[in-house]
Amino acid sequence: MNTTVPIILSAPKIIDLLKKIDLISVIEEGFISLSSDKAIIPPVGELLFDNPKGETHIKYGYIFQQPYFVIKIASGFYDNPKLGIKSSQGVMLAFSQQTGEIVAVLLDEGYLTDIRTVIASMITIKHLAPKKITCIGIIGTGIQAKLQLEYLRQVTNCKNIMIWGRNQEKAIALKEGFLNPEYTITVTSSLDILADTCNVIITTTPSEEPLLTWRQVKKGTHITAIGSDTPKKIELETDIIKHADLIVSDSINQSKTRGEIYNARLDNCLDEKKLIELGTLLNNNTLGRQNDQQITVADLTGVAVQDIMITSAIINTYKSQ
Amino acid sequence: MNTTVPIILSAPKIIDLLKKIDLISVIEEGFISLSSDKAIIPPVGELLFDNPKGETHIKYGYIFQQPYFVIKIASGFYDNPKLGIKSSQGVMLAFSQQTGEIVAVLLDEGYLTDIRTVIASMITIKHLAPKKITCIGIIGTGIQAKLQLEYLRQVTNCKNIMIWGRNQEKAIALKEGFLNPEYTITVTSSLDILADTCNVIITTTPSEEPLLTWRQVKKGTHITAIGSDTPKKIELETDIIKHADLIVSDSINQSKTRGEIYNARLDNCLDEKKLIELGTLLNNNTLGRQNDQQITVADLTGVAVQDIMITSAIINTYKSQ
Repeated sequence: MNTTVPIILSAPKIIDLLKKIDLISVIEEGFISLSSDKAIIPPVGELLFDNPKGETHIKYGYIFQQPYFVIKIASGFYDNPKLGIKSSQGVMLAFSQQTGEIVAVLLDEGYLTDIRTVIASMITIKHLAPKKITCIGIIGTGIQAKLQLEYLRQVTNCKNIMIWGRNQEKAIALKEGFLNPEYTITVTSSLDILADTCNVIITTTPSEEPLLTWRQVKKGTHITAIGSDTPKKIELETDIIKHADLIVSDSINQSKTRGEIYNARLDNCLDEKKLIELGTLLNNNTLGRQNDQQITVADLTGVAVQDIMITSAIINTYKSQ
Repeated sequence: MNTTVPIILSAPKIIDLLKKIDLISVIEEGFISLSSDKAIIPPVGELLFDNPKGETHIKYGYIFQQPYFVIKIASGFYDNPKLGIKSSQGVMLAFSQQTGEIVAVLLDEGYLTDIRTVIASMITIKHLAPKKITCIGIIGTGIQAKLQLEYLRQVTNCKNIMIWGRNQEKAIALKEGFLNPEYTITVTSSLDILADTCNVIITTTPSEEPLLTWRQVKKGTHITAIGSDTPKKIELETDIIKHADLIVSDSINQSKTRGEIYNARLDNCLDEKKLIELGTLLNNNTLGRQNDQQITVADLTGVAVQDIMITSAIINTYKSQ
């Protein structure tokens, strides 16, 4: 038998520990490791379910010279809310890179995936948004839309938000549930109006049809697309990728098989010269937005380095208490 | 937050529960599901480590109409014994097929992988060995060799065993550690002698060079090869696959990328007409050995259905207590 007992943490404890972590720095370090070839990240494992409809992603890998390798299981079961259960579910596991022994089981119920996703979005906004953000458009009304709202203050002083949802009631509920009086939040049923008003747009839906079109996007806009993480899901018309000045991918390798960039490539709308990896940008900020007229797009499909970094940070914070 | 708390079981508790399970029936049912297209088993995920040398396999999937999907993480870190730690390590996770919620974490430290592997081997011997087994040859001296010794009595009355190990001392230690006086155990340093004496041979090593040759194998022998589970590992000269009368694979799909059958195919030594899947054989025993002169080979690379079945059985047994 092993002599060490793994750390097992439940969701409330994990949420408590998260408050003590500088998440943006932690996740940035992960992206830099990935783009510096200091990480081994195999292709995503996937399980699909029909009845009820659900999907499970297994993301895993390790960063050289770190103590742990991490395996993350994250599911989306979209009928769960009818049962009063969160649609996103999951667990993060850490193992020793020295012995393969299990070190920690984080029973985060998908929460850490939600958090590392919103943090990646914030990193792209921090580094790619135009200097003066007039209004931030959020497309979608789910967990990610809510988290974007909560975390935006970490990277911008802009307090003007516009929300678009396929379901107007959910958009209103999202607005009304966000109780920070400093913010001015508008709900719109028109993506034309949203794109005309906002120069930062975050897309957070599981749409399988493009929502935002090239015609709608005005000069100087930055778009972060976080909804599409499979080959089928798409939120941006591929012409946006074709005409934008700069495309940033969290993992160029992963973008070959999923997300907006994958779909744009299928439509011959991807100019590889305009594509850089997020960690490369973080290493050299001169590669980013050149002026306030450029249109920039960040496509995030979610990479295991984020899971590795957030899991390691939780473990380290827990141990140092 | 989820309202249900996952079951978390440590290795001693798991070992205790295992005693109450008819493992052969349970694992046979898994193989039958696989061969009847009632299971979704994606390709194995893999992580390799250089310093120290280690490998991690992620096996996962689900069987239709069962409550759980299972993800198994199993590692082999071959320098562990120097630290007083088992080389095989791991954990099995069960999730609801209805909601994606985590149901159980089995902290089995690789033990369930070891057990479901020896059970698969016993199933092949039960169904493919010649009627009269004269002596059973075990090639290798590790955990699997030890488990084969312990489990053989579940499928045969033969008590004559011959052990071959690259390291003679380890072979002697294996013999001396097995304290059942009913058995006659011989250690040999010659594979010629082993193959000449035994008409059932089990290979259990991580060898990357063939150990047993076609010339050595006598008429009527059954061989179960369990050591090779990667493209690189190989224990049988590919001529054995070429000339044997019947080849049984635990997963024909998985045998396309790893194990003895994979290597034989590379050498153009595989006649597909002689190849059947274990679950197909279990469904129709007339497809097996036809007489006591045939040479049969079972190549086991280890399939997630075994992990699904053993994990589900542990959970059900735990819940029914």
